[in-house]
Amino acid sequence: MINEEIHQLAQRLRIDSIRAAAAANSGHPTSSMSAADLMAVLMASHLRYDYDDPKNPNNDHLIFSKGHASPLVYAMFVAAGVVTDEELLTFRQFGSRLQGHPTPLLPWVDVATGSLGQGMPIAAGIALCARELDRLPYRVWTLCGDSEMAEGSIWEAVEHAGKEGLNNLVTIVDVNRLGQRGETMHGWNLSSYAKRAEASGWNAIEIDGHDIEAIDRAYTEAEATSDRPTMIVARTIKGYGASETANVEGKHGQPLKDPEKAIHELGDVGPVHVDVAKPESAGQPHRFDGDPSVPLPSYEVGGDAVPTRKAFGEGLAALMRRRGDVVALDGEVGNSTHLEEVLKHTPERYFELYIAEQMMMAEAVGFQVRNWTPFASTFAAFLSRAYDFVRMAVISQAKLCINGSHAGVSIGEDGPSQMALEDLAEFRALGGSVVLYPSDPNQTVKLVQQMAEHDGISYLRSTRSGMPTLYGPDEEFTIGGSRVVRESEDDQVTLIGAGVTLHEALKAADTLAADGINARVIDLYSVKPLDVDTLAAASRATGGRFVVAEDHWVEGGIGEAVLTAFADADERPRVVQLAVHEIPGSGKGAELLHAAGIDADAIVAAGKRLAGLGPQIASAAAGASAGD
Amino acid sequence: MINEEIHQLAQRLRIDSIRAAAAANSGHPTSSMSAADLMAVLMASHLRYDYDDPKNPNNDHLIFSKGHASPLVYAMFVAAGVVTDEELLTFRQFGSRLQGHPTPLLPWVDVATGSLGQGMPIAAGIALCARELDRLPYRVWTLCGDSEMAEGSIWEAVEHAGKEGLNNLVTIVDVNRLGQRGETMHGWNLSSYAKRAEASGWNAIEIDGHDIEAIDRAYTEAEATSDRPTMIVARTIKGYGASETANVEGKHGQPLKDPEKAIHELGDVGPVHVDVAKPESAGQPHRFDGDPSVPLPSYEVGGDAVPTRKAFGEGLAALMRRRGDVVALDGEVGNSTHLEEVLKHTPERYFELYIAEQMMMAEAVGFQVRNWTPFASTFAAFLSRAYDFVRMAVISQAKLCINGSHAGVSIGEDGPSQMALEDLAEFRALGGSVVLYPSDPNQTVKLVQQMAEHDGISYLRSTRSGMPTLYGPDEEFTIGGSRVVRESEDDQVTLIGAGVTLHEALKAADTLAADGINARVIDLYSVKPLDVDTLAAASRATGGRFVVAEDHWVEGGIGEAVLTAFADADERPRVVQLAVHEIPGSGKGAELLHAAGIDADAIVAAGKRLAGLGPQIASAAAGASAGD
Repeated sequence: MINEEIHQLAQRLRIDSIRAAAAANSGHPTSSMSAADLMAVLMASHLRYDYDDPKNPNNDHLIFSKGHASPLVYAMFVAAGVVTDEELLTFRQFGSRLQGHPTPLLPWVDVATGSLGQGMPIAAGIALCARELDRLPYRVWTLCGDSEMAEGSIWEAVEHAGKEGLNNLVTIVDVNRLGQRGETMHGWNLSSYAKRAEASGWNAIEIDGHDIEAIDRAYTEAEATSDRPTMIVARTIKGYGASETANVEGKHGQPLKDPEKAIHELGDVGPVHVDVAKPESAGQPHRFDGDPSVPLPSYEVGGDAVPTRKAFGEGLAALMRRRGDVVALDGEVGNSTHLEEVLKHTPERYFELYIAEQMMMAEAVGFQVRNWTPFASTFAAFLSRAYDFVRMAVISQAKLCINGSHAGVSIGEDGPSQMALEDLAEFRALGGSVVLYPSDPNQTVKLVQQMAEHDGISYLRSTRSGMPTLYGPDEEFTIGGSRVVRESEDDQVTLIGAGVTLHEALKAADTLAADGINARVIDLYSVKPLDVDTLAAASRATGGRFVVAEDHWVEGGIGEAVLTAFADADERPRVVQLAVHEIPGSGKGAELLHAAGIDADAIVAAGKRLAGLGPQIASAAAGASAGD
Repeated sequence: MINEEIHQLAQRLRIDSIRAAAAANSGHPTSSMSAADLMAVLMASHLRYDYDDPKNPNNDHLIFSKGHASPLVYAMFVAAGVVTDEELLTFRQFGSRLQGHPTPLLPWVDVATGSLGQGMPIAAGIALCARELDRLPYRVWTLCGDSEMAEGSIWEAVEHAGKEGLNNLVTIVDVNRLGQRGETMHGWNLSSYAKRAEASGWNAIEIDGHDIEAIDRAYTEAEATSDRPTMIVARTIKGYGASETANVEGKHGQPLKDPEKAIHELGDVGPVHVDVAKPESAGQPHRFDGDPSVPLPSYEVGGDAVPTRKAFGEGLAALMRRRGDVVALDGEVGNSTHLEEVLKHTPERYFELYIAEQMMMAEAVGFQVRNWTPFASTFAAFLSRAYDFVRMAVISQAKLCINGSHAGVSIGEDGPSQMALEDLAEFRALGGSVVLYPSDPNQTVKLVQQMAEHDGISYLRSTRSGMPTLYGPDEEFTIGGSRVVRESEDDQVTLIGAGVTLHEALKAADTLAADGINARVIDLYSVKPLDVDTLAAASRATGGRFVVAEDHWVEGGIGEAVLTAFADADERPRVVQLAVHEIPGSGKGAELLHAAGIDADAIVAAGKRLAGLGPQIASAAAGASAGD
């Protein structure tokens, strides 16, 4: 396209942004209008993307980190010919794919954005993937707003991409000066961004973001820059092209009052079609060989105490040898989480993100965009640093396997800053998530394999200290399962644990048995989804007397999961919830379990109390079950 | 002290770090040894701190952002004469104040650290507090590890402090090259840190961190720098001074194997006492006038629909006029959360942190260290970005008031990226937290006042769209309360809602009544703590038939809170949990409430089903209550 045609395209992108927002009576046309020239030049002359084949592995990627500029994204899809004008005008309506912020319901959208500061780190992850995993020459473009440059996650990504020298990454910053509620921290001070990018090893280019030739030159320079990523810092005008909105404060996130006038000012440009260049390369992504015959690690029942974190590392290492699509991401704690085990055989699929949990999670999301199966791992407590990234990954429909180690007070001496006591609540409260909490190394290994099979977000909680091996290496464990580890014909109470508390429950069952109280013990290793049938059978068998012990705050944890399973059932067990209620300190793990009231002693006391009560539900013959 | 004495002090700090870790058989002596010279010079010649009067408002602050160097902190307290050698050797033992990472159980510690990248942003917050609120000349020193410089939160703070020109902030980076599992991203490349700090407007000084004169010169330069913060980037050696550990990989987080040999190499230095200079200023912190006669905003029952976010802003604005200690922190969304209301009368206590939620929360924590009462506010969804900071604030025993707006699917068109559906789970799963979710503007105003009275972490969930005003301005609402908004003598079912779902429950009750089913309706605005007595009375009165509707994932939300209240009670209501189960899209709020199955229609259906069942608990005469 010649420049005048590109100008017309940009004007049409603005017009369609205005029209979409007008139809919705909602949305962000002004944030779209500032970036329209930047995107028009990209589409016309630099992007390599087959819109008819969004799965083409050689396509470039374009991530709108400023997801609120969704009218512009959708206008681009119209210009590319894959979204009709009719559909454009369904923007933000119930049932439309054209949601308020982009999501992968649209095949040309890689990830959901709209929480600022996430698209750019994910783009960096995809760019690294191109070089290290796919080994293909596609380029990753990302459009950032200037407001979101205040997010630390952006600068984690800048530092990461700079250090890695990702020459295939181009970050375009749309410096339209105006944030949501007024001027940004830096206004039009372009060098405030450029200097910092340069300090992290980037090529930085400052341009007028409405100068089509300047934009084209900048993209050309970025493509020619072979040793580092490029940040194009573009001075733009919010609401550009319409007198109602251009550089006017208070116009964020609002449809125009007079769209017709604005469209007229923009030249009444009709529909513009752009033939986006298709990628030249016909290469296929690199694939690493897997050897399904590699045995899984196994541990001897009754042998040395093996922490589940160690079994996680060894199980993942085996998985990665068996499957070439699995990759591992570390937050500089791989010697503690045992993620380092994967370095022994598959170092080329191990990625050190240093202590930057947001970037770690973003890179994992980026890798799965390209169909790799990522395992991200750090201390469970520090996953709270990346919670917004996991929240958004749900909306991105991402496949993401996450390990959080050092859960709960049982870690001991390190004290509360290192103890995850909220991670079960965090990971349960994600649509469609899987939450696993094994108590045994063989079980852990099996669950790690299951996570890789699961299409969604799965979380494994692992434990610092060694625990006895309960299960043989041939036993199978599945997502949604549980295990009755002790039962008899005349059980009076059900003790439910997972991870460290399962072992406390088993000790408690011995003590109770010595006092003539038989206890059923359930290993509830799949906290979500829950094995409701096994729980319901136990409830019927033990008169509805449940003790749940968990190394977690009571809120959002295992006890509440069990309660929800029976909430609307005819027969609802009585549940004693043993959980952490006070901020713990340092000490030995056993001391802290005792102080928190979640050790065998506390379980025994609760079990005795419950056993002394009459049946809490009708007899087993009643037959009603949970989930009715 | 002369330099040789300072050297002796540093050696003793190393020796005591080694001794403490040896006694605990745990801990981080090597990360302490690298920074001992830096801290010895600080104590001997630059810090102004009255260890006998840690509440002295003129004391400098010293924040160990690298909290794992706790042996060094504690050794400094020994050298200052406020911790005995005997107590030092209780390090990491159960019941000791000297936990694995520092906490404010020790009066000389401002905040808990140990999750990396947090102490430095909090220090920046305290430094801003000195200038803008306290108006006192104290200085804030913070010691960072080099690994934690990978955290984006550090760079949010660097940018914030640089922009603000915080000349009273000195960040000391202990570049010992070795992280937990190997070399950091930048090793001993000091300029990689210095250049970035300079790009954000800092004075940066690169030094040898074991050269006492160089350290002293750098501190002197920092004190003399009047227009900007200073970052001292110090090249150090991890495990310095002992052949077993000096610059040896694999020594992170471990006691020495041969402490006696190391102590001998360090010169067998005995106890060293240092008289830390007391602050010279005797000034008192600035106080802003409050006028308790300023009226609270009030809203007419049955008047225009007022969103609770608006009432939050107006209620906070009134509170800030009434109380001079209250301050407001924004994440560049104050026009949406209505935090901007405070600008009308108390702009000097409004702080714009831009879109940097971690920095916002860190600054709030810093302000409360200095006895201000902070309200931090953004969209509830984006609070997930700062969850680790809130988690740590619990351990810091912080007083922190947090508002999260735009909760749930009811926000409508913006789509799922902006919808908090996990915030109740997040904020419930914090030890000792308060979680409030008002449904009415007058109620919101009252609860905002209550939050300011509460000594701990309180969270208010506010709603985007307007809702009818239910309560008169004279009604009182308290933390831990609830309100029965509809009841009769023969209620058959209890409908429980909060926020937007309370209004749906009221509509449902009308419909049910038309069908001859009387429903009690409870406004459960205090989600934590819960008004168990009122719930128990309702359970007894309505045959244990409960419907809970919430605009949140089922996990960790209001339904589970209710279930926990009755889990171990003799009589446990049957609870239908209406909550969000699928990832929502865009649409009108009412459409999305309906699609999620949490609107009046769904409540009616559930109420009818429950009413058709027999009593779910024994008759009211049975008398047993929840919490027995």
